Parts: sequence; C-alpha cells; structure tokens
Amino acid sequence: MDAVTRSLEPLAQDELRNINAYWRAANYLSVGQIYLLDNPLLKQPLTKEHVKPRLLGHWGTTPGQNFIYVHCNRVIKQRDLNMIYISGPGHGGPALVANTWMEGSYTELYPNVPMNAVGMQKLFKQFSFPGGVGSHVTAETPGSIHEGGELGYALSHAYGAAFDNPDLMVCCVIGDGEAETGPLATAWHSNKFLNPATDGAVLPILHLNGYKIANPTVLARMSHDELDSLFVGYGYKPYFVEGSDPEEMHQKMAATMDSIADEIKAIQDDARNNGNTTRPLWPMIILRSPKGWTGPKEVDGKKTEDYWRSHQVPFSDVINNTQHLELLESWMRSYRPEELFEESGDLKPELKALAPEGARRMGMNPHANGGKLLRDLSLPDYRDFAVAVERPGHTMAESTRVMGNFLAEVMRQNLDTANFRVMGPDETASNRLGALFDVTERTWMAETLPEDDHLAPDGRVMEILSEHTCQGWLEGYLLTGRHGFFSCYEAFIHIVDSMFNQHAKWLKVSKEIPWRRPIASLNYLLTSHVWRQDHNGFSHQDPGFIDHVVNKKADIIRVFLAPDANTLLHITDKCLNSRDFINVIVAGKQPQPQWLSMDAAIKHCSAGIGIWDWASNDQDGEPDVVMACAGDVPTLETLAAVDLLRQHLPDLKVRVINVVDLMTLQPKEEHPSGLSDREFDILFTPDKPVIFAYHGYPYLIHRLTYRRTNHKNLHVRGYKEEGTTTTPFDMAVLNDIDRFDLVADVIDRVPGLGSKAAYLKQFVRDKLIEHTEYIHKYGEDMPEIRDWKWPYSS
Amino acid sequence: MDAVTRSLEPLAQDELRNINAYWRAANYLSVGQIYLLDNPLLKQPLTKEHVKPRLLGHWGTTPGQNFIYVHCNRVIKQRDLNMIYISGPGHGGPALVANTWMEGSYTELYPNVPMNAVGMQKLFKQFSFPGGVGSHVTAETPGSIHEGGELGYALSHAYGAAFDNPDLMVCCVIGDGEAETGPLATAWHSNKFLNPATDGAVLPILHLNGYKIANPTVLARMSHDELDSLFVGYGYKPYFVEGSDPEEMHQKMAATMDSIADEIKAIQDDARNNGNTTRPLWPMIILRSPKGWTGPKEVDGKKTEDYWRSHQVPFSDVINNTQHLELLESWMRSYRPEELFEESGDLKPELKALAPEGARRMGMNPHANGGKLLRDLSLPDYRDFAVAVERPGHTMAESTRVMGNFLAEVMRQNLDTANFRVMGPDETASNRLGALFDVTERTWMAETLPEDDHLAPDGRVMEILSEHTCQGWLEGYLLTGRHGFFSCYEAFIHIVDSMFNQHAKWLKVSKEIPWRRPIASLNYLLTSHVWRQDHNGFSHQDPGFIDHVVNKKADIIRVFLAPDANTLLHITDKCLNSRDFINVIVAGKQPQPQWLSMDAAIKHCSAGIGIWDWASNDQDGEPDVVMACAGDVPTLETLAAVDLLRQHLPDLKVRVINVVDLMTLQPKEEHPSGLSDREFDILFTPDKPVIFAYHGYPYLIHRLTYRRTNHKNLHVRGYKEEGTTTTPFDMAVLNDIDRFDLVADVIDRVPGLGSKAAYLKQFVRDKLIEHTEYIHKYGEDMPEIRDWKWPYSS
Ligand SMILES: Cc1ncc(C[n+]2csc(CCOP(=O)(O)OP(=O)(O)O)c2C)c(N)n1
Ligand SMILES: Cc1ncc(C[n+]2csc(CCOP(=O)(O)OP(=O)(O)O)c2C)c(N)n1
Ligand SMILES: [Mg+2]
Ligand SMILES: [Mg+2]
Repeated sequence: MDAVTRSLEPLAQDELRNINAYWRAANYLSVGQIYLLDNPLLKQPLTKEHVKPRLLGHWGTTPGQNFIYVHCNRVIKQRDLNMIYISGPGHGGPALVANTWMEGSYTELYPNVPMNAVGMQKLFKQFSFPGGVGSHVTAETPGSIHEGGELGYALSHAYGAAFDNPDLMVCCVIGDGEAETGPLATAWHSNKFLNPATDGAVLPILHLNGYKIANPTVLARMSHDELDSLFVGYGYKPYFVEGSDPEEMHQKMAATMDSIADEIKAIQDDARNNGNTTRPLWPMIILRSPKGWTGPKEVDGKKTEDYWRSHQVPFSDVINNTQHLELLESWMRSYRPEELFEESGDLKPELKALAPEGARRMGMNPHANGGKLLRDLSLPDYRDFAVAVERPGHTMAESTRVMGNFLAEVMRQNLDTANFRVMGPDETASNRLGALFDVTERTWMAETLPEDDHLAPDGRVMEILSEHTCQGWLEGYLLTGRHGFFSCYEAFIHIVDSMFNQHAKWLKVSKEIPWRRPIASLNYLLTSHVWRQDHNGFSHQDPGFIDHVVNKKADIIRVFLAPDANTLLHITDKCLNSRDFINVIVAGKQPQPQWLSMDAAIKHCSAGIGIWDWASNDQDGEPDVVMACAGDVPTLETLAAVDLLRQHLPDLKVRVINVVDLMTLQPKEEHPSGLSDREFDILFTPDKPVIFAYHGYPYLIHRLTYRRTNHKNLHVRGYKEEGTTTTPFDMAVLNDIDRFDLVADVIDRVPGLGSKAAYLKQFVRDKLIEHTEYIHKYGEDMPEIRDWKWPYSS
Repeated sequence: MDAVTRSLEPLAQDELRNINAYWRAANYLSVGQIYLLDNPLLKQPLTKEHVKPRLLGHWGTTPGQNFIYVHCNRVIKQRDLNMIYISGPGHGGPALVANTWMEGSYTELYPNVPMNAVGMQKLFKQFSFPGGVGSHVTAETPGSIHEGGELGYALSHAYGAAFDNPDLMVCCVIGDGEAETGPLATAWHSNKFLNPATDGAVLPILHLNGYKIANPTVLARMSHDELDSLFVGYGYKPYFVEGSDPEEMHQKMAATMDSIADEIKAIQDDARNNGNTTRPLWPMIILRSPKGWTGPKEVDGKKTEDYWRSHQVPFSDVINNTQHLELLESWMRSYRPEELFEESGDLKPELKALAPEGARRMGMNPHANGGKLLRDLSLPDYRDFAVAVERPGHTMAESTRVMGNFLAEVMRQNLDTANFRVMGPDETASNRLGALFDVTERTWMAETLPEDDHLAPDGRVMEILSEHTCQGWLEGYLLTGRHGFFSCYEAFIHIVDSMFNQHAKWLKVSKEIPWRRPIASLNYLLTSHVWRQDHNGFSHQDPGFIDHVVNKKADIIRVFLAPDANTLLHITDKCLNSRDFINVIVAGKQPQPQWLSMDAAIKHCSAGIGIWDWASNDQDGEPDVVMACAGDVPTLETLAAVDLLRQHLPDLKVRVINVVDLMTLQPKEEHPSGLSDREFDILFTPDKPVIFAYHGYPYLIHRLTYRRTNHKNLHVRGYKEEGTTTTPFDMAVLNDIDRFDLVADVIDRVPGLGSKAAYLKQFVRDKLIEHTEYIHKYGEDMPEIRDWKWPYSS
C-alpha cells in the first residue's frame, strides 16, 4: 500500500504550489499568534515593540496540524465531504485559529476579527493574551468539540461524534505522546463498535512528530514493523506518510487522502448497499514528520526543528536578545507573507479558493456546535412506569430495574431518530437496566458466536470495559447534538474524575460563548453503590464522586439521591430533559422498600427536599429532633430508627426530612437549587438537634450547610471509609449509620429524655452486639433486620 | 513457535497426573470457598445446611488462575525461580487463597486455619463471610501486592515490582476484560522501560477466557492474526496456549513455560554477560481457555461453562433448589476430593511435593510483603540545600528547582542500592527537577538517536505520558519494598484519583494485618499548579486532588503546602523518611519570594502551622484580624495585602498565620496532625475575623474547621473555578484571592475602621480596574505587582 501511495503524485503543479502556500500561510499566522503584538504583515522591519512580552503557546505540533488541515480541506472540497477535525494535541491552538480564520469561519463568528490586516493584528494579539483567547483548541475555537488540554480523549471523542452520523467523517489527530496515555491506547478498539452502515467514519491520523514535551515518544522509537503490526493488531489498515520535504509530503499526503477517501466510501457502500456487516479494516494514517516542521533548525546552537525543543515557544527572550529577534523575523519571512496575503491583509484569492464553503468549512460544520442539531428526545410519560405504592415501605422494588423499564421505552421511542445511546463498562445488566435489551442490543462489530445474546452491529447499548472510553464516546455523542446516559458502579466512576472535570470546564466556557448552542446534559447513574457492594468489598466502596463533582461551577452540576423507584423515575425524566448540565444520579439496584407513590414522588422531587409527614409526628408542635436522610440506604435506616423511637419513646416528636436534590442544602446564592436561609430554617429548625444520615462522606453535608443557622446542631453520619465483604446491614453498622446507632445519636443529642432513654440506649447497644454475633455465625443479617418493614399504615 | 510448543509434551505421565490433581484440588477448594459452610471434604452427602446462605464470589476466572499457578509452581521448583504472582482479575480470590493454603503459606501466616479438615472448613466459611476475608486478592491474601478489585493496573504493578529486582520474575495474569481498560492497554509499553541487565522479568499471561461480566471481550473476538499482530506490535513474542482438554493443556502450558523460562534466561544472560543493551522481545502467553473451566456446562438449560454466565456464582439458590444442590455436589465430587486429600484433610504428599518451599512459595515470597525487604534511604542533610534567606521576601527562588537539587543528591546516594526512582509524565524537566539528570538519566530501552539527551537503559527517572503508568509503576515499586517519588501537574493528578483510592485502601487494610510490614510512603509533588497554569489555561487549573485525598483515612494521608523552597526541603525530607502514608506536596515551580531561612522553616514545618511574627504586628495585644494563608501564591498575596494594610491602616493589628500541614486545621481527634481546640483558639482567636487565603477550593477549609470555636468568623478565599490564559496576578484577581481583594475583605470584616478604610477600599477597587486595563493592553502584570517585595527588614 505504502509503495502505491508513494508513487502517486496526484497534485498538479498549480495545486501543489497553492496547497503549499496555504500551509505556509497557516504556519505564518501560527507563529504570528505566538509571538506578535503588532506589525502582522511584517510591512515594517520587526522590532521588539512588535513582540509580546510573555510568549505562551505551542509551536511543535502546529505545522503538522496545519498540514493535515489543508489536506482535509482538499478532500472535503473535492468530494463534498462532511468533515470535522479533532485536534488531540489541542495545545496546537494556533493551527486551528489560523485555519478557521483563513476559511472565514472565525470572522463569521467573531466579526471584530475581520479578514484583513486589522483583524490579523487582533488575531495575533488576542492569542494567549489577557482578555483574549486560550492557547488551546477551547470551546472558543470554531469547529472544536475537543480542547485537548488534558491529553488522551481525542479518539473516543471522535468515535462518539461518528456514531449515528452516517455522513460524517471525523478526522482525528492524535499526538504520538498522547498515544501513550491509557485512554487513548484503548480507544483504538472503538473500531469494534463502529457500524459502517449507520455510523460515520473516523480517520485517525497518528501525528508521529517524534517528541512530547522533553522526551522522544514511545511510538516514534519502535521499528516501522512493530508500529505497523500494532495498528494492524488494533484492526486498522495503516498508511504511512513520512518525510520532511514539503512538496514530496504534499504529494504523499494527497495521494493517501485520496486512497483513504475512496476506501472509506467503498466500505460504507459495501455495508449500505450490499449489507456487508463484517467489521472492515478502517484506514488510518501514520504521519511521520518533524516536530516544529519549518521552524528554526537550531536555536543558540541547539537542535530545535525535529526535536523536543520546538514543543512550546522555540525561543523566547526576543525582546532583549537581538539574535532571537532576527531569528523570528527571518523565520516569519521564510513563509513569504507577501505572496500569501493581499496588501489589505486578506488571503490571496487563489488560496481562499482552497477552503471549502459554508457549512463544509470545518470551522462551521454544525456537528461541531452540536446544540444546533439537537432535537428533543421523544419521552414517554415516566408516570406510566411507576411502582404502585399503597402505603409507604411495603412494596419492594429494585429502583434501577424500574428505571430500566423507562429507559427502554425512551430507547424505543427514539430508535427512528437514532439519537440516544446508553453507555456502561459491562455493567448494564448487572445494574439491572436489562429491559433495554428488549428494545435494542449491545453494539458489537467484532466476531460473534452462536451462543451470543444481545450483540448486534446496530445495538444502541455500548459496553466496553473502559470507563474512559464510555465517557469519551458519550461526550463526543453529546457534543455533536445527541442524548445519552452512562451507568457505572459508583466507586469506579472516579476513573473518569479528570474527564468529568474537563467536560464541566468545557460546559462552563461554552455557556459564555453566544454562538455555542446548549447540548444535552451528561447523565450519570451511579449504582452498585457503597452500601451494597458488600460482596465485592472495600475496593468497590467509594461515594466520593459527589464530592468531586460539587467543586465545579454550581450552574453546571446537580446531584440527585433517589430514595426509591418513583423518585428515580422523576429524576431520570428531569435529567433527560435538561441541557448543559452534568447530572449525577445515585440509586441502588437491590430490592428495597418503596416509600412514595408517584404523586408523592413528583411533589417531593420537584422541591428536591421535604418533610415526610407520614413518617413524622411533630405535626402539632415543634420537633424534638430532625431526622434527615439522603440516599436509599440512609433513608431506610432512618425510618427504621424512627420506628424504634416511636416504639420506645412515644412522646418524642420526630420530623423526618428526605433530601433528593443535594444542592438544596446549599445557600440559594451558591446554587440555583439552594434553599433560602428562611426555607432552610423552617425545615431544619433554628435550634433543634438534626441527625443527618447521608449516603456519602459526611463532611460534604457540613461543607454544604456550614452557613446555615442550625449548623451547630447538625450531626452527620455517612461513609467513613470502613468496609469489607460483609452483610448489607453490617456495612451500615461499620459506619455508624445503622438504625441502632442513629437511635443512640438521638438519645445523645436530645436533652431531657430521662430514664426511658437510658434503657433504650442499652437496648440498641445490645442489639448491635447481637447483630455481630449473628452475622459471624450465619453470614446474613438477622431476620428482624432483613424483614423489617415500616409498620405504620401511613 | 506455536507449532513447536504444541508438539512438545514435557510432562511424564506421573507428573501430568499430579499436576492435574493439584489443579483439581485448587478448583475443589475454590468451589468450596464460594459455596460451603461445612462438610468440607464431602464426607457426608451434601445438604442445604452445608451451604452458605449468601453466595458471593467469582468462579469464572478461578480455574484458569489455578491452572496458571500450578504451572508457575512447576517452573519455580524446577529452576529455583524467584517468582511472585499478580492476579489482574483479583476477583479470583478463591484461587489464590486455595493455592497459598495448599502450599502452606496460608497456615504459616494464619495458624488458625491449619492444613486439615478443620482448617479447610474455616477456609471455606471465612471466604466472603462477615468477619472473614474478602472475595478479592486483598492485602489479607498471602503473596499479593495487588487486590485487582478495580481492574487495569496489574501490568504496571508487575513492571514496578520487576524494576531493580534482577532475580525476580513477576507472573502477571491479565483478564481479557481487564485488557480493555485504558491503563492496561498502555501498560504493555512498559517493556520499553525494562532493562534486562538490572531489572527482573515480567511474564504477562493474557487470560483469554473469552468473557467479562456479561459480554464477550474485545480481544477474544479479534482474529488470531490480529491478536498476534497486536502483541508483536507491543513488542512481545506471544505464545498461544489454547484449548480445553486438561491433559493437552497441561502439556502445552508446561512446554510453553519451559520455553519461556529458557528464553528469559537467555535474554538476561545476553544483557548481563554480553552487555547486549538492545530491547529484547520478551515472551508472553495468551492462554485461551474456557471461562469457568471444569464448572457446570449448563445450568437450568443455559450454557454456563465457557460463557459469561460462569463469571460469578454459576448458580445460586442452592438452599431451596434441590437440583442446584445436586449440581453443586456432583460438580465438587467431579474433582474426586478423596484422591486429593488425606482423611485428615491435608493435601496428599505427592501433591504437596509439587509446591515450592520456604520463601520460594509465591505466598511467602518476601517481595510480596515488601516492607520486609525495605531499607531506609540514605538521605543527605536537606539543610545543605537551603536557600539563604537573610530577610523575608527578598531572595527569589524556584522552589521545585531547589527540591530537585536535594532529590538529585538523594538519587546519587542511593544509586548503589538501586532502590529509589522518580516518576513523571514527561514533566520532570518542566517541573524544574532537572538536577536529577546530573546524576542519572531517563530510563529508556527503545531506540535512540544521536541527538538524544539523558536517555539510558539504566536511567532512574521514569517518564511516560501516562499518569496511570507512572502511578502503577510506583505502587509496584513501593509495594516490593523500595522508595519513590511522583511529580505531576496538579490538575492532571486527578487522572489517577481512583488509583490513589485503591492504594489508600490497600494501606489501610495492610496496617491492620500483623504480618504485613510497613512500606515506604507514596509521595506526590503537585506542581505547575492552579495559580501558575496561566499559560495553559482553564483545563490545566484544578486544585481538587486535595479534596479527593482528605476523604481517605486520616492516618494514611497528609497534605503539605509549601510556601517556599526551604519549607519544601523540610517537607520532602519528612516524606521520604515516612512509611505507610500517602503524602501530597503542593509547591510552585516559578520564581517566587523566599520567606523563611532554613532554621525558621524547620520550626515552622515541624509544627505544621504557625504565626509569622515578622509579618504580624499584634505582638503587644490582640489582633484585629487574622490573615491566614496556605500555599505559595496565597501566601504571597496575603503578605502583599498585609503590606498595604500596614501602609494605609497602620493602627490595624494583623496576625499572619501560615499553614504548611493542612491537616493541622482538623480537630486532633480527626487527624494525627490536628491541633487541639485550645491550640487552634490560641492561634486563630475565639472571635476575631479570619481572612484565609487558601490554595485550593475554599470549601475544604470550612470542611476541616467547621467545629472550631471561631469558625463563624472564618472567611475563606480560594480557587472558585475561574480561569483562562491570562497573567499570574490576574488568576488571583479572577478568584478574588489577590492582595486588593484581601484588603477589601479585611475592611468589610473588621468593625470600626472608620473613614481611612473607606478611602482604602476605593483605592483597592481602583487598583483592580487599573490592573485589568493594564494587562489587556500590555499582556503582563503591572510592574508594581511583578516587582513587589516585602518592604520591611524583618
Ligand atoms: C494527560 C496529560 N498529561 C500531561 C500533559 C502535559 N503535556 C502537555 S503537551 C505534552 C506532550 C504532548 O506530546 P504529543 O502528544 O506528542 O503532542 P505534540 O508532539 O503534537 O505536541 C504533555 C505531556 C497533558 N497535557 N495531559
Ligand atoms: C475498572 C473496573 N470496571 C468495572 C469493574 C467491574 N467488573 C468486575 S469483574 C469484571 C469483568 C472482568 O473480566 P475479565 O478481566 O475478563 O476477568 P475474568 O474473565 O478473568 O473474570 C468487571 C467489568 C471492575 N472491577 N473494574
Ligand atoms: Mg509529538
Ligand atoms: Mg475474561
């Protein structure tokens, strides 16, 4: 293949000259952004006044990306392709800003940066400059769905964008350093999930420029054969484009892009017209070119081009060092700007003509501003899936299974529009969302065996044992204007902590950009949670993702703790309807008592927090104690504690509060869901003891409420990092959040309870001992625990 | 190769019979652990009373791991190998418990589980049972350094264990599901960092049992050729061992293990005797065998062996379903326990003879209890690296560069013992630790070019663009009794949040196990931190790892914020000397004023918190305001604010407190570093306003201090998730933690300041406007900001 592409020289001399000129222009504009404050067209000799005082940017990756971009433009134009560009090494921001400016996208979105000398000066100055634009391919950059600041997610984003977009081609540039990251190393396998009949194509371009920040890359220092073998092993057909002579490289790249475009079309035609459903070998490119290509060969006697030294700013101190100033000028002049730009600063017409037009420009492709294409989901009425709850606490149900029924119907109603997918790391069935498989299958393009169940090329449940890939796919899918859902074991969602961060940051910035349209929220279901990972033990017990999430901007994140199935239904519906949020839903998958009828659940969830009057007995006066709870297991234990209190201390006035939307606890000024201080005081009283049983690490509740009037009386129980393989109730006991400990907490905190309470305290102490004895002998919880039901009729 | 190994049948009939019997015994004991409470040897017919009420465990992976274990034993014995075993799918706990019991390790460490019928019954009952042992290969399991609960880290752990252990062979079983994770997918490249001359060997065994929880695996559904190609591409020489007939498979496996053991020896000899430093092609095994091998073929008419249904407990409800009870009995009897165990329950002598002895048993290998082998580092006196600080705030230094000088000397002094390594994702130089390269190089076994610098096979600085791999290597290195250091950009350390969790959990459990010896702490340097990622922008700004860390057990974690270089030196020394901690050090790499002389730094850091008297002026009475700070940039801004206050409000009494050890803020009862309430009150006063400038998210300070007397007067400034590419000072301004905003905070909170304060308030407001104007014009901070120095002589 190699041999064939190399022999071809598809570019006529004119075209070659123009393409090379276009590339020079992009390189020129990139260097200008990194270095210049003024004198953009170098009409005057360069002086230090023209140079930025702080030089911030990354040159090394940029010329390679400019090279790729112009070749994408060529095939887009030639074949009217619908293409977007993902820049893995997103620190190559100058390349994307330059190219989108050249094609006119930039000016269309930012009219104050026109396509002339004034605009060019602004373009240069604003880059990595206070009040200007970031150094990376941020949300501010036209055509970007991927900032590329934290490396590793380019390829999963690219596949996510391609799913269900049959006409889209996603060009995905992957840094050879980036390729060393775990998330990227496994994302190559996404090709086993891409259906050529109904999905678009991903064209991975491994940008083998040899170096990362200060080291060679691993992939650049394997033999050619190993490299080839690796990508063949990953299931691709690698095309090598290698060299440094611009003209030769343009010919090679053009020839390769032509072959690949043909090949992708052939693959898609075969699948679409002939119904061929075997996994094809998708082409990819390995572009081996010098890091900092066309930049200074040496700086201060040290190798710079084709070396890691060109990673960032190849030389600084331009203001004080005249040699550097001269070097900069001669470097910039080496692109011969006078041949590239009109007097006015506009690009020459023969170069302009190389860019695609309208929405075909990669900077204006609507898929890269997904909100533009977003259609609402068709949602069934979640009430139809309600569990009948005649009286609180008697019906048993598995909340996530009920939710699964709803999700299945959502899936069904949106099969035609093909804009809803569910992701999970091999846990969809384990998380009791199996009803989905009545409606669709798991996406699977790899080999199948006769005994396989629920695998199909057009399945819409995506399972791979990589939380990173699930997250990356989903982000790519959402950012291109579709909807989705990610279910995960609670503990292991920490695997994508940093990806969550990046997405939250992207949303925050996007919301400040007028031309970015809202996208569907990223919805997490965290289940198999800390309290019911008793069988897998300590390593599977960690409710800390919530803590992680609440550090991000309040208007982007929401956290819901569903006490039962009907509340979960309401929350799920709300999340699927929302835009530009990251919604975290925590809910159990085990059979558990159901507390609220659908009507009650709607009222409760709409407020996000509320008194459960049927569980409270302070209606006629003030409570002696407030028992608050958030999360299914804490709610169960709280109600069991209330039952004990009612039996043993019938005069004690107890108010039960359940929290569904965790952010209600924060002051109104801090989070849109927050209660006002007055509302909070009414619920929690200004001065009564509050015993709060919380799903996660107890500190979080303090963090959210420390400003509240009654904070000093707030006593929180939660997960205190004790756990092992044990019984469900013992997990609660180990962390002092069980019914008996909660009763003891009440006794310790409510003044003046008298001697009845002393007996009760001893009673619960004895119960705890009995419990431990029992489980060590029998291995399961005492019947009175397992079979406990809320004994009151309402 | 394949053909060759298949034709060999190295096992004589006896040996074959015994090996198979050994395997049957391990399988028998595994099933027993999952299912039985009693009747361990099946001397009576099985009844439901013998069965556990809750069945918790994973069968699917177990027989394959038992198979591998016995073949490891064989080569260990035959060649006197020094081998440890890492179980990637650590949910195969029953296999490791069974095998270590059979070889006697288990009983040696847990004498209450003897090698007889009584012990066997205990072994069975305790598994996944309250008060017993976990279902995974936890720290409780002899021979384990890897729990394998969260999948993905087996291979990086294995390489970490092998570095600098020339005689060690690390057998690393990798689940085919696990192989889909990102961390695992990139860890294969660790072979480019393993030096055959001075490191041990890793033998990866890809356990291709076809399935994960409820899906086939990607690797199992690639063609043989692709699979082969993938691992050739990764730089290995794959050996396939495929089939399901036990006798054939034993022969194949034995032949393969023999070839591989020879090959590894040849590689090592070549490197060690002939000085061959080219990267060898290390052998690996692809073991394709049925999931749940030897388990029930079908359950309730559904395929189970060789299918995902055997992943966990292949059938439950044994107590109520007599068919299941019968199935269990016939399954267990299919191993013919009477041929395997003596009447007494002890293993038959001919089987016992197959296990290695003493420390050669994988359950007793001291490398898997690394604390046993741990030697103290030889540490230079950190005082020798001190920055001379004559008066506070005048000397400028880059803290991490100073630390680098110290680390370099630590490296030098421990070159001989080869037990110290520094890891980083391509940022060692960027993080200013470049002095290390005067002493050692970067580890590099891949190709080199003439222009390369600081790359060598025996380098001790390990750089790969994978935070996961750095962390995994370091954990493996520490757990086998060595020392190390991980430097990382602060924001991207979140990539390993979940790995941190797992290591913290491992340490917590280990500390409760008497036979586990303390290991060296895991030390992080987080630099290029939130306040000075102004050039990379928002995606690189996240100080939340601290929040993540403090959720773990207090006696395991510590967080240090170094205000300057001398404090950083002291902290680094303390961390390198410590055991069984995870130490997080946050420090900047940019030039910044130095506050404390070495003597002062020692006093300050030893306490972890203290008043800076030279910056305070409340010596003669009570302060009007306490200005607290933690972190280098907040400290700088606080002191600059104090300067403004002194100039404009000379009568105001200000106390300056700096916090180095963040955990001092917590109550004594919560963390060993915590101050008592009295100590806290003395420092922070019971009632004066406290303005606290904190490095990270401000809520954390509230979380740590909400119980303190003066909490209501505590006003915290920190990172509130605002950032972009801008100037350093503007980052502070965007988050209201700059000197001017701090002054405004003081004015707002100290009562009775009068009209001078009103003018000052307007002055700082104007300064902030001036600042914004200036940076938008010039792109850098105002000279009065950049050049500000603490103007007082002491
Ligand atoms: C996950 C992560 N770790 C570390 C960094 C710091 N970093 C920024 S650029 C870079 C090197 C990137 O090399 P490569 O992917 O080859 O990009 P290129 O050579 O095209 O610049 C590194 C390590 C990062 N951005 N993300
Ligand atoms: C990172 C992570 N995600 C998800 C899980 C849940 N999980 C437990 S076992 C398992 C399947 C493992 O499959 P494989 O590695 O093939 O192991 P084996 O077949 O040998 O059991 C999964 C997904 C996990 N333990 N870790
Ligand atoms: Mg590179
Ligand atoms: Mg498997």
